[in-house]
Amino acid sequence: MNNFEFKNPTKIIFGKHTIEKLEREIPKDAKVLMLYGGGSIKKNGIYNQVKTALSKHDLIEFGGIPANPEYAVLMDALKIIKEQNITYLLAVGGGSVIDGTKFLSSAALFEGDTPWDILTKNIRTEKGMPFGTVLTLPATGSEMNSGAVITREETKEKLAMGGPGLFPEFSILDPQVITSIPERQLANGITDAFTHVLEQYMTYPIGAQLQDRFAESIMQTLIEVAPKVLQDPTDYQAASNFMWSCTMALNGLIQKGVPTDWAVHAMGHELTALFGIDHARTLAVIAPSHYKYNFEAKKEKLAQYAERVWNITEGSTNDKAYAAIEKTEAFFNQLGIDTKLSDYTNAYQGTAEIISKRFTERGWTGLGEHQSLSPDKVEKIVKMAY
Amino acid sequence: MNNFEFKNPTKIIFGKHTIEKLEREIPKDAKVLMLYGGGSIKKNGIYNQVKTALSKHDLIEFGGIPANPEYAVLMDALKIIKEQNITYLLAVGGGSVIDGTKFLSSAALFEGDTPWDILTKNIRTEKGMPFGTVLTLPATGSEMNSGAVITREETKEKLAMGGPGLFPEFSILDPQVITSIPERQLANGITDAFTHVLEQYMTYPIGAQLQDRFAESIMQTLIEVAPKVLQDPTDYQAASNFMWSCTMALNGLIQKGVPTDWAVHAMGHELTALFGIDHARTLAVIAPSHYKYNFEAKKEKLAQYAERVWNITEGSTNDKAYAAIEKTEAFFNQLGIDTKLSDYTNAYQGTAEIISKRFTERGWTGLGEHQSLSPDKVEKIVKMAY
Repeated sequence: MNNFEFKNPTKIIFGKHTIEKLEREIPKDAKVLMLYGGGSIKKNGIYNQVKTALSKHDLIEFGGIPANPEYAVLMDALKIIKEQNITYLLAVGGGSVIDGTKFLSSAALFEGDTPWDILTKNIRTEKGMPFGTVLTLPATGSEMNSGAVITREETKEKLAMGGPGLFPEFSILDPQVITSIPERQLANGITDAFTHVLEQYMTYPIGAQLQDRFAESIMQTLIEVAPKVLQDPTDYQAASNFMWSCTMALNGLIQKGVPTDWAVHAMGHELTALFGIDHARTLAVIAPSHYKYNFEAKKEKLAQYAERVWNITEGSTNDKAYAAIEKTEAFFNQLGIDTKLSDYTNAYQGTAEIISKRFTERGWTGLGEHQSLSPDKVEKIVKMAY
Repeated sequence: MNNFEFKNPTKIIFGKHTIEKLEREIPKDAKVLMLYGGGSIKKNGIYNQVKTALSKHDLIEFGGIPANPEYAVLMDALKIIKEQNITYLLAVGGGSVIDGTKFLSSAALFEGDTPWDILTKNIRTEKGMPFGTVLTLPATGSEMNSGAVITREETKEKLAMGGPGLFPEFSILDPQVITSIPERQLANGITDAFTHVLEQYMTYPIGAQLQDRFAESIMQTLIEVAPKVLQDPTDYQAASNFMWSCTMALNGLIQKGVPTDWAVHAMGHELTALFGIDHARTLAVIAPSHYKYNFEAKKEKLAQYAERVWNITEGSTNDKAYAAIEKTEAFFNQLGIDTKLSDYTNAYQGTAEIISKRFTERGWTGLGEHQSLSPDKVEKIVKMAY
């Protein structure tokens, strides 16, 4: 096990009818900006629940944050924060709204030339404007971590940011919210969370037995509840385990003391930036090719995953490892998630070269847990995913 | 899954050679009281490591906190805290020293008549004096939670306290510390942590699939590493998994959203108070009888535990459940832990009646996850453990 430090101060408020607890969590004298996305919260009743809970607070709102939170839109919100002397942010949405709110939390107190620097110069946010979240879509884990990914349409870029100042003060997780989420987004959420676990687990054995078992626990739970969630989102047991699994998949716990990969995300982000493919689907496109290309380096963990998560006990290490990749791809397919780039676009030719070139230009010469995935290898993996 | 709230702000600093990071964690202008136990830290080098790391801090010390932290001794420490205007506490020890430090953190800022009230009047500590810990004995999980148990010899009582103000600001966990721990205490630590998991798991199914799997993960890991830890405490992989498992067993995570029992601890504490038996050993004495007496109420979870943790797949639910109790008792025995009260004292006759009477006097009329264990049932369980 590697040395590690772990601190996660976010307060989780989990369960039925918890949105009403908002009033207690935000200081009475705060000037609050409520941020949300395309307006689905107005249809499913969450908007009204939030407004009712905060009826005694000084609250204004900003809607329209798109999936893949867009820099230009967030700059409009930042203007309001400054003009209106906002002191507290409330994200009501999924990972995109929460990530956008994290950017605003950082940008609101940023003293450099332009907030774009936070993203391009890897500036770590030690202190941001305080914020909380009401999660409406389980998937990214952003509700209990301090990272965010921001998109800039102008340059077709998707860049990460973070820092200890960007943990939500609280996050409200009411599993009942999933009843109004379209099946497509539920499938995305399951795939996203599952891949988060894989990125922190599918590397090489380092003797972190407890972390391995926790990661396997999350994957087993997601596999168990996935068909139930898709078939009947009102199944509260399935919904609550799905929601808590998504949070635990990326709140920092399972990555402590172990090597992590994250190359699937690096490649996947480019597919979203280039083609607008849903984030989770890009991960499902890249992951199988990535594991096949890096088979030798990852086969011990692949075989352990085969045994413990998929109950594949027959055959050699290689057999089990390969079967586990097949099982993973089949799992995504069963959720209705296509796993080839050509399923999403006819214009896929040349994509591998473009991504490889971008990574070279950014100096990303060694991705993955061994820092060994050079841009030419990335090119091969993306081609395998056509 | 039940509704829950979860917040745990303790910063964990885990790994080899981490004690030197102490300097960074305690404010430079703090007046620090370092608290420790019987002096074993002077023999194993930890005392010197702490003193070196804090050589630039204003530091005084208080040693001699006994196993089962004693109220009278802690009152001596409290006097020093007040006389010397201490502003920061540092516990260097195992659960007893850390629990004692939590009591002092609360008592130092307590404004009532006597700090004894904190224990007898169940006063929740919202804010305590800030403190950190250097863990020298993995077992209780006190390094990452906000609870403590304090003993008063004068009245032969052992009482619990806690509150959100009693999380350590940081805890340093260097698994190398276990190399100097006597085998007896290592066995106690494994038993203590294992029983902590059982208390939060061995109740009835409530559809908390992820929490169940996390609990099972900790127990599986403890079972795997236990013989290695006892045979060779310099086995770093075993030591690090042991240490992290003990912390995760009682940092609040696995109890969220599920019913919990804690009747084993309630009964066990009395055996320590009456006979001075090591805390962990009292749990191993009570647990098998408790699970046999409450077999019908717990058999579904016992059978799940049998299958997933002990790989017992043959037989009926009753068969598997019963076999799991036997396996648990055998596990404790293999660690060198006796599981009958008569193994520890010849004066056991009448113990059940004394404990039953005490519970009646305290108004503890319904222990366990169903609040159904009345003092007369407690009497029967303790008798079964003779």
